[in-house]
Amino acid sequence: MNARSPDVLPPYRTAIDPAWIDYNGHLRDAFYGLVLSYATDDMMDHIGVDAAYRERTRCTLYTLEVHIHYLHEVKATDLLEVRTDILDADRKRIHAGCSFFCARVAGPVAVAEAMLLHVLRTDKPAAVAFPADIESRLAALKLSEAGRAGFGPASRRIELRRR
Amino acid sequence: MNARSPDVLPPYRTAIDPAWIDYNGHLRDAFYGLVLSYATDDMMDHIGVDAAYRERTRCTLYTLEVHIHYLHEVKATDLLEVRTDILDADRKRIHAGCSFFCARVAGPVAVAEAMLLHVLRTDKPAAVAFPADIESRLAALKLSEAGRAGFGPASRRIELRRR
Repeated sequence: MNARSPDVLPPYRTAIDPAWIDYNGHLRDAFYGLVLSYATDDMMDHIGVDAAYRERTRCTLYTLEVHIHYLHEVKATDLLEVRTDILDADRKRIHAGCSFFCARVAGPVAVAEAMLLHVLRTDKPAAVAFPADIESRLAALKLSEAGRAGFGPASRRIELRRR
Repeated sequence: MNARSPDVLPPYRTAIDPAWIDYNGHLRDAFYGLVLSYATDDMMDHIGVDAAYRERTRCTLYTLEVHIHYLHEVKATDLLEVRTDILDADRKRIHAGCSFFCARVAGPVAVAEAMLLHVLRTDKPAAVAFPADIESRLAALKLSEAGRAGFGPASRRIELRRR
């Protein structure tokens, strides 16, 4: 039992590739997305949508949406830790929430959400239900209503608010 | 004059780097974000926040938020074209909308929004107002209310809706 969810995924950790630093001297926005993508691969391994499963079933996850909030600059010397929560899941979809941390900064340096769809890869990829074992692993990982309500920045919509 | 905005930005075009293809045999989600990031650099050059300006003023754009909707798979052989619209802008911020196209698919293959902040880079980076010439370039590019309302998928929030 854990404050984040009944079950919990291990964090994903990575150093910063020097090629990911841009002309502003910090981690380019897109590479937070790449770290998110690798952290999602790691989550897939843990819930059982790993390479062997993908090979055997021709099923995989496709990304439908990603939304990243950039909260602090990340520098070349930082080590990133990504903590993934299962915010919600249904028979075919996972709504994942990822919080990015580095030791230099107290709160998260970025917060991201991703919507993922379980797909059977054929000539015409189609959404299919998770097998029972994966569905129950997701159910065990899913955040409580309260945990979900407390996840990430309050603003979920991109718009300018006049001040 | 143009259906998209009174003034218009030239599209950004790129081939797909084979290293961007993942185990699903399509463009990895994060690399749509990298193409978006390069398209944003291109937009910055066109509005005058180019390398010479950044060097002279120590001002640049920082990304606050990115939201990507993945609508179609992109393959290694596709050429991507990104059309950028200025959805909104104020004294310090730009809300950009980017539509991704490839010749194989009728509609957009992805739609993204980014919120960008004009920042003076010092030890403590701080938001600062755009100079007048850049502000007026942004005003000329800004979409009409109608154009903005018609941009992108209707859902702006990531959540599972039960069906």
